[in-house]
Amino acid sequence: MERLYARYELESPLPLEDAAAVIAGEQSCGTFLRLPGETDELRERSGARIESVVETGSSPTPALPCRIRSDRYRRGEMVLSWPMENFGPSLTNVLATVAGNLFELAEVSALRLLDITFPPSFAAAYPGPAFGVKGTRRLAGVADRPMIGTIIKPSVGLGPDETAAMVEQLVAGGIDFIKDDELQADGPHCPFEARVDAVMRVVEDHAQRNGRKAMVAFNITGEIDEMKHRADHVLARGGTCIMVSLHSIGLAGLGAIRRHASLPLHCHRNGWGLFSRSPDIGIAYEAWQKFWRIAGADHLHVNGLANKFSESDTSVIASAKAVGTPLFGAGLPGFEALPVFSSGQTAAQVAGTHAAVGSPDFLYCAGGGIMGHPQGISGGVASLRQAADAAMAGIDLDTHALTHPELAAALSLFKDKR
Amino acid sequence: MERLYARYELESPLPLEDAAAVIAGEQSCGTFLRLPGETDELRERSGARIESVVETGSSPTPALPCRIRSDRYRRGEMVLSWPMENFGPSLTNVLATVAGNLFELAEVSALRLLDITFPPSFAAAYPGPAFGVKGTRRLAGVADRPMIGTIIKPSVGLGPDETAAMVEQLVAGGIDFIKDDELQADGPHCPFEARVDAVMRVVEDHAQRNGRKAMVAFNITGEIDEMKHRADHVLARGGTCIMVSLHSIGLAGLGAIRRHASLPLHCHRNGWGLFSRSPDIGIAYEAWQKFWRIAGADHLHVNGLANKFSESDTSVIASAKAVGTPLFGAGLPGFEALPVFSSGQTAAQVAGTHAAVGSPDFLYCAGGGIMGHPQGISGGVASLRQAADAAMAGIDLDTHALTHPELAAALSLFKDKR
Repeated sequence: MERLYARYELESPLPLEDAAAVIAGEQSCGTFLRLPGETDELRERSGARIESVVETGSSPTPALPCRIRSDRYRRGEMVLSWPMENFGPSLTNVLATVAGNLFELAEVSALRLLDITFPPSFAAAYPGPAFGVKGTRRLAGVADRPMIGTIIKPSVGLGPDETAAMVEQLVAGGIDFIKDDELQADGPHCPFEARVDAVMRVVEDHAQRNGRKAMVAFNITGEIDEMKHRADHVLARGGTCIMVSLHSIGLAGLGAIRRHASLPLHCHRNGWGLFSRSPDIGIAYEAWQKFWRIAGADHLHVNGLANKFSESDTSVIASAKAVGTPLFGAGLPGFEALPVFSSGQTAAQVAGTHAAVGSPDFLYCAGGGIMGHPQGISGGVASLRQAADAAMAGIDLDTHALTHPELAAALSLFKDKR
Repeated sequence: MERLYARYELESPLPLEDAAAVIAGEQSCGTFLRLPGETDELRERSGARIESVVETGSSPTPALPCRIRSDRYRRGEMVLSWPMENFGPSLTNVLATVAGNLFELAEVSALRLLDITFPPSFAAAYPGPAFGVKGTRRLAGVADRPMIGTIIKPSVGLGPDETAAMVEQLVAGGIDFIKDDELQADGPHCPFEARVDAVMRVVEDHAQRNGRKAMVAFNITGEIDEMKHRADHVLARGGTCIMVSLHSIGLAGLGAIRRHASLPLHCHRNGWGLFSRSPDIGIAYEAWQKFWRIAGADHLHVNGLANKFSESDTSVIASAKAVGTPLFGAGLPGFEALPVFSSGQTAAQVAGTHAAVGSPDFLYCAGGGIMGHPQGISGGVASLRQAADAAMAGIDLDTHALTHPELAAALSLFKDKR
């Protein structure tokens, strides 16, 4: 019978095997107190199984407040597994099982879900990304280089016409991709449909003239029916991408939009810090991104190298690699998503990003890195394109800058980013 | 113009006023680098405003890993506000604003959203709970005492007929409310519709005989269309409640079900530990529950006194009071929800719960506290009813036990819970 596996880091006032048994019981058919009806056969059929427990260290104090006292709190990793019979191929119910009540248990003083292995039945039950890298390249008209994108700034405050004027400059500057900020959705000052109408007039106009349509990710985040309506509106106006804030709409929300809309889903991870910031509680990106890819995410944010947030480059690179790693075995769809680099990105980090990803299959979004360029927006876009060209050709960035003034200007301005 | 207010606890390597300015900028129209287009007028219209900052202490080390070094990390509270013009009355977009990228900022070494004040436009834009305390009492046939409930155990592993047999015993024992465990939804071993059909035959049979229908919360958690279909099925079989795992379905998911189904929404908070377990990152229950009530939650889990998890009684009581506190001013709907006590609950904690809530308007769920009773399920239910009677009449529990053997047996068995 198929099983689902989850790997955790944990700390406990109890021996780790005992803590693992409490968690396995709480998250399947039992507790330490055996109840009537909890037969051996039922436990065998429905119980979570402890696959492994490895102790890696200990501390005299608990990482998180813990009312069970001990003179040492052991730390380590465990792998649990569940029979698919318990929940079937259902992302929402798997989440309630592998990331449910267990975080509250008194028997743990730290707990992070590190990874999860979804069995092949999920490949059959869910659609996965409809566009991914290939479909996005086709719609954006970018064959084989990194796609260069930006975010409308100021994040919020521009009306529809002001937004369209900004898009006009960006498209004229040669940008491949533009996204709404996650703070901009359908506020009274910049209503969704009016913004789409104004922006798409500009985008379509340029597309007719130069044969390539910039991809704009419009933030449709809202109630389910609102999102469906907004997705339809984007499609009707010739738009090629929609954006959602994942934590706002939930797994069920993303699933509903995936089934309704035939546009790439640009998935914003705002709120991710809540899951990742503490080393003692949360869900690792490796595990987190699998849920969203199965539900249908085409583009997933992975932050960026030398970013403005607290995340390390090592973690950013691991995330980018994760979203491109096939989810199931050979012969099954891989549900690969396109990694989106963003936040504090400039021409200075393009080569490092290319090397880390190991291919040009990524979307590289810069805000200040474009808008703040001394030669303006077109200079900013050119500097990123030039940096990508150099990276793909294996040319040293400074050498390339000698003959490419926009790149040279960017490297000089953003030298703290290298 | 209407504004939305959010209160945070934060720690920072910077002076707190500077950290607050970074957060306010990141979550509205600006960053420290002023961009073209970020006019004074735009900042005035769309910027988040720092309403107050109070320093409460400091530490020589950061609470969470933080790459900005300092010799002291200041801790305190701040209140920010946003103009409603930025997002309109949209829960999903408010969440992305007040609990979005800010948790990742390098300028904070701890950040918790403590509370939020939704302006009255949310009372007009959202339906809130359709049933709440009053509607639940009407459907459960319980006029004025605490409602006594339980969870099907083992949590998962029983098939539809075994579940119905368990429900038979519970209903015969006089229970008011029964819920699926959050691990039980629509797994192959206990398909949703077969379980509803088997359980509702038992429930309807008893209802016809004794005139009162026990309320059963069936766990419909799944994709949006699945949930709608399941809710319809419950209603068609005479069921009176549906349950969802909030973090699995998301705010947009709950909103869709609220608008579709005409049944009380029993809202399970599994995964809550991820938001609450660390004192340094997360969202306080006070803030969290407001989102779900506005979206339509009728019943909200608040854990229980002397529970099996890590939460303190003080926190449990504060949560229970929170869900019953009106959300808006006089003359507007309060969107009050019914607090659900659960996890490690027995007759021993009923009086304390009643005193803490300050009224009998709560749902009291016990698993082992009923199933583990020496006189069986009916003894367990009786012990809880007797404890509630004593609490409401102001009679000392031990005195009441002298003439109520089921209560006496429970108090003896669960003496560690007092």
